[in-house]
Amino acid sequence: MARLGEGPVDWLLTNAVLADVDGHGSLRIEEGWLHVRGERICARGTGRPPADLPHVDAGGAVVTPAFVECHSHLLFAGNRLGDWMRRQGLEPDDPRLGTGGIAATAKATSALDDAQLVATTLARLAPLARSGVGTVEIKTGYGLSAPAELRLARLALEVAERARHDIGLDVVVTFLGLHALPTAPAHERRHIVDDMIGALDELPAGVRTVDAFVDPAGVSAEEARPFLEAARARGFDLRLHVDQFADANGAALAASLGALSADHLDATGPEGIAALAAAGTVGVLTPIATVLSGTRLRPPVMALRDAGVGLAVSADANPGTSPSADLRLAALLAVTELGLRPDEAFAGITLHAARALGLADRGTLEAGARADLVAWPVSHPFELVLSHLPLEPWRPLPD
Amino acid sequence: MARLGEGPVDWLLTNAVLADVDGHGSLRIEEGWLHVRGERICARGTGRPPADLPHVDAGGAVVTPAFVECHSHLLFAGNRLGDWMRRQGLEPDDPRLGTGGIAATAKATSALDDAQLVATTLARLAPLARSGVGTVEIKTGYGLSAPAELRLARLALEVAERARHDIGLDVVVTFLGLHALPTAPAHERRHIVDDMIGALDELPAGVRTVDAFVDPAGVSAEEARPFLEAARARGFDLRLHVDQFADANGAALAASLGALSADHLDATGPEGIAALAAAGTVGVLTPIATVLSGTRLRPPVMALRDAGVGLAVSADANPGTSPSADLRLAALLAVTELGLRPDEAFAGITLHAARALGLADRGTLEAGARADLVAWPVSHPFELVLSHLPLEPWRPLPD
Ligand SMILES: [Zn+2]
Ligand SMILES: [Zn+2]
Repeated sequence: MARLGEGPVDWLLTNAVLADVDGHGSLRIEEGWLHVRGERICARGTGRPPADLPHVDAGGAVVTPAFVECHSHLLFAGNRLGDWMRRQGLEPDDPRLGTGGIAATAKATSALDDAQLVATTLARLAPLARSGVGTVEIKTGYGLSAPAELRLARLALEVAERARHDIGLDVVVTFLGLHALPTAPAHERRHIVDDMIGALDELPAGVRTVDAFVDPAGVSAEEARPFLEAARARGFDLRLHVDQFADANGAALAASLGALSADHLDATGPEGIAALAAAGTVGVLTPIATVLSGTRLRPPVMALRDAGVGLAVSADANPGTSPSADLRLAALLAVTELGLRPDEAFAGITLHAARALGLADRGTLEAGARADLVAWPVSHPFELVLSHLPLEPWRPLPD
Repeated sequence: MARLGEGPVDWLLTNAVLADVDGHGSLRIEEGWLHVRGERICARGTGRPPADLPHVDAGGAVVTPAFVECHSHLLFAGNRLGDWMRRQGLEPDDPRLGTGGIAATAKATSALDDAQLVATTLARLAPLARSGVGTVEIKTGYGLSAPAELRLARLALEVAERARHDIGLDVVVTFLGLHALPTAPAHERRHIVDDMIGALDELPAGVRTVDAFVDPAGVSAEEARPFLEAARARGFDLRLHVDQFADANGAALAASLGALSADHLDATGPEGIAALAAAGTVGVLTPIATVLSGTRLRPPVMALRDAGVGLAVSADANPGTSPSADLRLAALLAVTELGLRPDEAFAGITLHAARALGLADRGTLEAGARADLVAWPVSHPFELVLSHLPLEPWRPLPD
């Protein structure tokens, strides 16, 4: 298959139903064409295409920007099946049924050699690429010590290199330096935070964003702040996991640090919402985790919308709380279980997800954006977010 | 790719972790081998394989029987996006957003020509075949009149023929003669029932099972009984949709007619449960529909289990109430939202699903079963039902 940027330098996509959201997140659907130059869209329009260039006929298909998965933990080994069983009141009776939370996943991840860990992660990415996803964020976070997290940062970049080359998927790497700390004396926890601040200077080039899990289940806002400020001072963009199981003032912290995004928000209160809106920080909803957590907590979607917070949607793929990487499922549950409108869910896996990653060049069909396009056999783009029935998308690219 | 029954007549699958359920539905996991002759497993064992035959090395993978999707409505055209929006309190503003319930789907289905309808349905099946499903039931039901349902029966058989040939997927066709009746005078409804009884004599050979939707949203038990008795008298096996939104005595009716299965059961009461157990009728759970319906009804899993009713699990793929064909998602939700144990969920998409279709030759790795095998890169079969993380299974077959 041809890949983005291969083939003729200039070409036209014609006979398409172009579906994306404008800069305000409003849905646009129009029959039209795209003029692509190299890896970029250089013009779009309706009516007669401009020039006599090689063209790809979309056959009337709905064409969207490739989806953006802005939050994932796909770099891990082992499983947490036993933890899931305990949540159902069952006792796992087989050592192959993993138990023990994030620490157990970290142990399994450290036990797998580099090549196997890269291969395992790539195998998880291949189905995503086939399902219309063009960009995936992958976090470290199952290292827990500075050397182990640095190893994962290096392997995540290797996954990124291979994914770009082998399956045409763009992978963005985030350093999740503070994921879980041992329930140890405060000074031991501080020691780990200091180590992670030190690790920031050793991060391989290519890591762009830095993250922390600010929640009663993770670290406190006070513990996270020096690490995040150190990251910001070194020029990293910030992403924060916040307020998943209780309001830990995580959203307010994210906003005060000018973070790109604050993710989860299940328990965020009015002050956090107002702070996110004022800072222009994107809120990332993780509906699969929300539904499967069984807590009955629901992110305050109406208040977030009313405040004007841009909302992205993610599958939050991880073995412990959201064992799925299915972005269309996340979008469907965002609508049916969280109350998002379908146009908001569509914006949430395109433009707003790209914004959550600080990527201005994707998630849209605007001139200047990457020509990472997906053609869908549907009559309306809402079928991508309001239905999970199987679809076989294709990539319109010239030979 | 080689297909079942091609290649050498006798071969061995070695170095596998065989995972299936025994005749009582109890999980079995053992390292071992399978001896395949033609399309069938002729022996299984542990330790040293018996003879010097061509062999396929599973590389230590978990090998399961291919999954069985026992309840689907994948033969349809159009969409019901507008209906989903209305359920969210939104008003669809585009004619491409389908509204109007089953009748609207029937209209869209009648408007699509035969070749397009077959192609659309096949496109929905291809991802299932890749995801480890080996057998899919497809129902008619979007015809509503006798001639239209007979057309769909013919097209479903054409889909079956093509699916078997093109993607190695076995499709079982069910005639859903009573799906929805117009809210018309009783005598007009009776007239349609009489037409459908007449249609039974015109069904093409190859249709094995007959179904009716016994629910306040469909037909009453009294309306359905003559149709179902006529089908039984003609030698068809019966399947019933029952008690999805209210207890309509559907489960009791299914049991009294000796139906293979009673599907949904969300609102079935104690009498229905006892009747199913006494009759040996399989209960088919449809967790995606249950969760997305928003009714908060939950099938009485504990009572069904205690009564000894065999439980299958299905995605119930349809555009109106369960817009997904994802059997692993159905299994996961069966555990997390309906309270099934993971071993029951695994039995529910293998052995019990085959029983719901009256197929004794699949859903198991027992000698005599079809050698429709799937190898999974997991360490325990619960990863197939207790996690929805992406997996790339492969079909162990000799060249
Ligand atoms: Zn996360
Ligand atoms: Zn059904």
